[in-house]
Amino acid sequence: MQDRPAQPPATADLRALALRIAATRRRSLELAQPLTAEDMTAQAMDDASPTKWHLAHTTWFFETFVLAPHLPGYRIFDPSFNYCFNSYYETQGPRQPRPRRGLMTRPSVARVMDYRAHVDEALSLLLTGGLEQQTLELVELGLQHEQQHQELILTDILALFAANPTRPAYRADGRVSAERPRTGSDTVGWIGFDGGIAEIGTNAGGFCWDNERPPHRVFLEPFRLADRLVSNGEWLAFIADGGYVNAELWLSDGWAMVNANDWRAPLYWEVRDGAWHHMTLAGLLPVDPTEPVSHISYYEAEAFARWAGARLPTEFEWEFAAKGVPVTGDGAALAPRAAGATNGQLRQMYGEVWQWTGSAYLPYPGYRAPAGAIGEYNGKFMVSQHVLRGSSCATPERHARATYRNFFYPHQRWQFTGLRLASEV
Amino acid sequence: MQDRPAQPPATADLRALALRIAATRRRSLELAQPLTAEDMTAQAMDDASPTKWHLAHTTWFFETFVLAPHLPGYRIFDPSFNYCFNSYYETQGPRQPRPRRGLMTRPSVARVMDYRAHVDEALSLLLTGGLEQQTLELVELGLQHEQQHQELILTDILALFAANPTRPAYRADGRVSAERPRTGSDTVGWIGFDGGIAEIGTNAGGFCWDNERPPHRVFLEPFRLADRLVSNGEWLAFIADGGYVNAELWLSDGWAMVNANDWRAPLYWEVRDGAWHHMTLAGLLPVDPTEPVSHISYYEAEAFARWAGARLPTEFEWEFAAKGVPVTGDGAALAPRAAGATNGQLRQMYGEVWQWTGSAYLPYPGYRAPAGAIGEYNGKFMVSQHVLRGSSCATPERHARATYRNFFYPHQRWQFTGLRLASEV
Amino acid sequence: MQDRPAQPPATADLRALALRIAATRRRSLELAQPLTAEDMTAQAMDDASPTKWHLAHTTWFFETFVLAPHLPGYRIFDPSFNYCFNSYYETQGPRQPRPRRGLMTRPSVARVMDYRAHVDEALSLLLTGGLEQQTLELVELGLQHEQQHQELILTDILALFAANPTRPAYRADGRVSAERPRTGSDTVGWIGFDGGIAEIGTNAGGFCWDNERPPHRVFLEPFRLADRLVSNGEWLAFIADGGYVNAELWLSDGWAMVNANDWRAPLYWEVRDGAWHHMTLAGLLPVDPTEPVSHISYYEAEAFARWAGARLPTEFEWEFAAKGVPVTGDGAALAPRAAGATNGQLRQMYGEVWQWTGSAYLPYPGYRAPAGAIGEYNGKFMVSQHVLRGSSCATPERHARATYRNFFYPHQRWQFTGLRLASEV
Amino acid sequence: MQDRPAQPPATADLRALALRIAATRRRSLELAQPLTAEDMTAQAMDDASPTKWHLAHTTWFFETFVLAPHLPGYRIFDPSFNYCFNSYYETQGPRQPRPRRGLMTRPSVARVMDYRAHVDEALSLLLTGGLEQQTLELVELGLQHEQQHQELILTDILALFAANPTRPAYRADGRVSAERPRTGSDTVGWIGFDGGIAEIGTNAGGFCWDNERPPHRVFLEPFRLADRLVSNGEWLAFIADGGYVNAELWLSDGWAMVNANDWRAPLYWEVRDGAWHHMTLAGLLPVDPTEPVSHISYYEAEAFARWAGARLPTEFEWEFAAKGVPVTGDGAALAPRAAGATNGQLRQMYGEVWQWTGSAYLPYPGYRAPAGAIGEYNGKFMVSQHVLRGSSCATPERHARATYRNFFYPHQRWQFTGLRLASEV
Repeated sequence: MQDRPAQPPATADLRALALRIAATRRRSLELAQPLTAEDMTAQAMDDASPTKWHLAHTTWFFETFVLAPHLPGYRIFDPSFNYCFNSYYETQGPRQPRPRRGLMTRPSVARVMDYRAHVDEALSLLLTGGLEQQTLELVELGLQHEQQHQELILTDILALFAANPTRPAYRADGRVSAERPRTGSDTVGWIGFDGGIAEIGTNAGGFCWDNERPPHRVFLEPFRLADRLVSNGEWLAFIADGGYVNAELWLSDGWAMVNANDWRAPLYWEVRDGAWHHMTLAGLLPVDPTEPVSHISYYEAEAFARWAGARLPTEFEWEFAAKGVPVTGDGAALAPRAAGATNGQLRQMYGEVWQWTGSAYLPYPGYRAPAGAIGEYNGKFMVSQHVLRGSSCATPERHARATYRNFFYPHQRWQFTGLRLASEV
Repeated sequence: MQDRPAQPPATADLRALALRIAATRRRSLELAQPLTAEDMTAQAMDDASPTKWHLAHTTWFFETFVLAPHLPGYRIFDPSFNYCFNSYYETQGPRQPRPRRGLMTRPSVARVMDYRAHVDEALSLLLTGGLEQQTLELVELGLQHEQQHQELILTDILALFAANPTRPAYRADGRVSAERPRTGSDTVGWIGFDGGIAEIGTNAGGFCWDNERPPHRVFLEPFRLADRLVSNGEWLAFIADGGYVNAELWLSDGWAMVNANDWRAPLYWEVRDGAWHHMTLAGLLPVDPTEPVSHISYYEAEAFARWAGARLPTEFEWEFAAKGVPVTGDGAALAPRAAGATNGQLRQMYGEVWQWTGSAYLPYPGYRAPAGAIGEYNGKFMVSQHVLRGSSCATPERHARATYRNFFYPHQRWQFTGLRLASEV
Repeated sequence: MQDRPAQPPATADLRALALRIAATRRRSLELAQPLTAEDMTAQAMDDASPTKWHLAHTTWFFETFVLAPHLPGYRIFDPSFNYCFNSYYETQGPRQPRPRRGLMTRPSVARVMDYRAHVDEALSLLLTGGLEQQTLELVELGLQHEQQHQELILTDILALFAANPTRPAYRADGRVSAERPRTGSDTVGWIGFDGGIAEIGTNAGGFCWDNERPPHRVFLEPFRLADRLVSNGEWLAFIADGGYVNAELWLSDGWAMVNANDWRAPLYWEVRDGAWHHMTLAGLLPVDPTEPVSHISYYEAEAFARWAGARLPTEFEWEFAAKGVPVTGDGAALAPRAAGATNGQLRQMYGEVWQWTGSAYLPYPGYRAPAGAIGEYNGKFMVSQHVLRGSSCATPERHARATYRNFFYPHQRWQFTGLRLASEV
Repeated sequence: MQDRPAQPPATADLRALALRIAATRRRSLELAQPLTAEDMTAQAMDDASPTKWHLAHTTWFFETFVLAPHLPGYRIFDPSFNYCFNSYYETQGPRQPRPRRGLMTRPSVARVMDYRAHVDEALSLLLTGGLEQQTLELVELGLQHEQQHQELILTDILALFAANPTRPAYRADGRVSAERPRTGSDTVGWIGFDGGIAEIGTNAGGFCWDNERPPHRVFLEPFRLADRLVSNGEWLAFIADGGYVNAELWLSDGWAMVNANDWRAPLYWEVRDGAWHHMTLAGLLPVDPTEPVSHISYYEAEAFARWAGARLPTEFEWEFAAKGVPVTGDGAALAPRAAGATNGQLRQMYGEVWQWTGSAYLPYPGYRAPAGAIGEYNGKFMVSQHVLRGSSCATPERHARATYRNFFYPHQRWQFTGLRLASEV
């Protein structure tokens, strides 16, 4: 979330903002387009949420934090929605327990669509009169928030369809990887960095979350980064070499998880006709060895790195290395893609899979959570999770940057999560 | 399930059977009519199932046990449905885990409707050619099975809507109790029975489940039965007298359950505006003291009886007393109704709430489960459950009789379950 | 527990009573003699209790229900013991949670021995002055209660030593089976019974528990009983025939238990050097095929009976058949013994293993739990358990009779539990 | 664990080493001296271990890693002990499951004492012949390891006695706090530090664990540290101000923990006669407001800091500030003590309670776990835990230093854990 910048944005940008609002809101509906009302209502597991809930919750966010306080005369669409669609904001009162979001067959998808239209209209009205800086920032926050949930819509639908015995495809045309050149993708190059005092986080004019701030200095020893992500082919070698049965490779908690849950491969992998397949947004497909491995836990990433004689980068090394690397990805790929030929540069930094780092998710020095409900957005999750950097094939366009900090628990696997190796020089 | 009767049913009854099939199958769809596709897909809890699943499973039952083996040339509608819609038949192979039925957003409701039409058509065809006795019996079994699931559709939807923060009504007109006379319903009469050797179970010509057989003799001491069900008003007195906080009233397991789950009233009861309300198929309504108490566990029934200085009847006492009492109820009431005036007869024996008995659900002497998959229908559940007798407001017409044995675990409460008191003479 | 008999026992029996008290109390100490203080303190699992706790709890029982109310001037040994050693008497106030009994390293064994001496002395004093009938009955109750715990001391120590990696022997000389003749034990004879109206339970002068009363009539169809217990040899055949992997043999709950816990044999069985061994009070020994199978759950007993084409007897059949069979066993055998030669009579009715029956543990018609704390002894457990009849190798002398009802949950296996087959004629 | 230093220790130090070995081994027995064999056998909870197990495990450590590989002709005392007393070394084979350590009533305490004597004698013999550098380091490791378990003996006994209804004292004279001056202890002073590039970790000649290495640089912004620990008095104010009922103060995971476990105060606190008491090694005592708060989780520490308008220090700030502060504490205090008067210096840095830091427990840059079983000592726990710095009242003498990294999960409370506040300048 954004601090108050010194200069308010020019009001001439309001029209551009209106277009962004419309595009972002429309994008959520596009993502839901291949889904039936039934698909949009079910909840794959406690960590995931129904598409309908995502569509309503993002709308509730605008209503609660932007419209209700800042648009005079705004009418709350339905007072019961605060209970239904509040996610975790203690300051906003009680809410439907997270594991029971999938039980809300009412309100219907149709009514949630009405809710969205009601709020869209009010947002248009809000912009008509010009905006104060604080309100502008809240609108921006709402847009960024909705984009985060666009990614979750995809990962949560994948979890749902993977739990379906018929393994349906979200979009049968969702796999674009085949079009990519694969030559040379097996060669890993290593890029060296000198380290020293690095500037981490940001204070720049554009939007950033509160957890990316304040900017501060860290000291880095020299390090190296692999120029591409770890591939499925390399993961198959890890499996073949006993990666999942050799205790010495694993953190103690990871080893307990492997055995308690009988992990033998990444999430969504299964053997069919004697060959590894994996569930994707395009349905069940053979595992392509050239594609980046995805849907692995931190434990698995960490064990793989040890097996490979390397380690995970810290989030600071990653950010330091990412300065100057152009951001790619538009959230339309639906699956991570092969690396393509080595080019002496860091490849696959964005737009394929989130990259586990060895860094725990903790506040930056001097971090203060913002006041009020918005302060619950990031700060209260700063324990027991690990930072992931980059962005994934499901991350919306313009929602990735070098300072972005994603975070999940070490056991979680349902996001598009992979890894890039690092090492000392 | 039915043994082979000595006399095959007259083939002249085939037209009547066709009409019954059509009516029964149509009734399932009528029950689903107030529901959206979203409603029909969600699963309230592990014990309950989605409406869509009930509609498909009953159809799968006909397909698997009647059509596939007995209609030459029958085409399986979709081979994946055996996995999706097998409930618990080990002999039919693996199946979608019960707690994950609600994740099957595909096949869609529309496709399940096509499935039903496909099977309905095949059933018509099957009857065209005349039927062997064994096939006729399997058709009968399929009808009875579907009727059981009709009751579950209602109880499971109630569980779903009770979990919905907006407490929607399944049918706003679902409460017919107000039309009933309430005069005199507070007076409990006691009917005495002499006991002696009683004939239990049945060998009669009509349909019965395997667990109602073989007919056999039991010895009964003289006993008395209350002439009506325990009412909400009496339950309120139990609560007010500390029923839920006095350990001495409870079985040890029941007391543990009360404390672990903080039970303070029947399931679906909640205080609103200082008064007890309960969730019903007509939505959230004030508790009517004249109606029978419902949605109680065996533990609660047993504790109440102790508090009242009485006991639960055995299933044999109940059956003995029920001989000659006309069966009532048509599954359309949607809520149990007040008793009406005392008439010197047993009232409310059927059509209001299932009545917990003190009898464990065990095989009758000489019981043998039928061969094959059908043998899994009842026999394998004969441990740790208690028998309930009568029928409920959700039980379909002609699906109740004096020998019928329903059964649930002592902690279960989501069915329409209540009690009638008994005592020694 | 005993109702008030018409005639009070002769006071001339007081000396005999004093001798019985001394012998019973001494027997508990004898059972503890092979154990260290460490052994006596640990708790193998939630269902089991430490030996020290048994020694103290039985003493607390006398103190609380006999001495405190009936011996004027009796001094409570230590007021904190009521919390420490109350088992489950809600009327006696809060208590150490059952799963945490093994944490009470204090009071020490030595102090518990002092407690026993204190109470023994007071019991002597109590008898000095003559006793009222009610007090006499409570003393009798205390003795019977202590005898029940003597059996538990043995089964709980077996559970503890079985959990010890070194598999220590409780008594290396504990196995007497080898001395028994084994000829002919493989032949099962079947004894037929006519059935009819049977008198069940007792009203006789001797002691009985409240759950054996009131005496009443049941109707029995003709039946047959195997003349001996099922043997380990037969159980090995069950295993070899896929008994633990064939779903069709099992109750649904049992099948779930088998798979959740990976049951492949009775409790305490393990393969060593390619052969089945089992942990016994004499240590780890090869499984002897002539001995009765023990440490099986109800689920296993029931599945075995189905596999064998038979069934379990009801508790009423068992009791009916046992009338006139002499009671044997003295609690010193420590392990069940081979049947010996067929003799045309029922063998192994007592003194080997408790025999699962097909009867749920429920109150007899007209049963009323006694008033006060003693009323919690049996009645509040009358749900979800099954009755076992006979007695085991660990049952104290004179603590077995035809009407005795033992009861455990269907999944429990740590007692000496086995089975005898029954069938229709 | 120690890397290979450039210079081997002078062999002239062998006599001093022999004395240290004797003193350290004797110290473990002294700690067990107030305990009965029963006390030494029980396990308070899964996280804790029996005293007997600690005594045996530390001995097994010497036997397995020092004597067996490095003393020619050494006889393994008992081969079964490897299973019994291996803690978590996967490379050493299977072991008694951690939650079942308390079931090992055999081997007895007496036999474990024999084991200790056997190993002590062999250690003497080992030193007789002179030692290679590698062996010397393993002996040192064994001593440090045993000292860690000496602290655990105390914390685990406290957990055991706190679970005892009689709340026994480990040592009635264990509370020395009252002798300390309390004047001025309520005043918190703040000490400022400039930050900059700090050297963290150590490469010095003395012993250190592998997780303290390699030494490396971090960049610190200016910061301030409180000159003393947070006191019970301050914690009482936190409670009184709704600290445990105000969601806004808590991390999300912490708030879930508070509510799931009904936390309302630190572990071991309870209200007696209307006043807060807490269980200590000297028994149940009134909470002394001048003493440091102890037995709090990371969640509580973090919430308190937020409530106080401060934060926790990072482990790097703590270490930076601790340079030059003399190490105090001898493991004999048994309870943390009041701070005494402000003196312009950092007080209570050692010897009272471990101090939660805001730093996750992660490897230092360039960290490599040592080869072999010893490599499992620290490295495999480097996820999901937080670092604590300083030392506690139970930490043995000479076992504390500025670079020492202790670590526990955020919810754990049974150690002597407290906090010191920090803030930006």
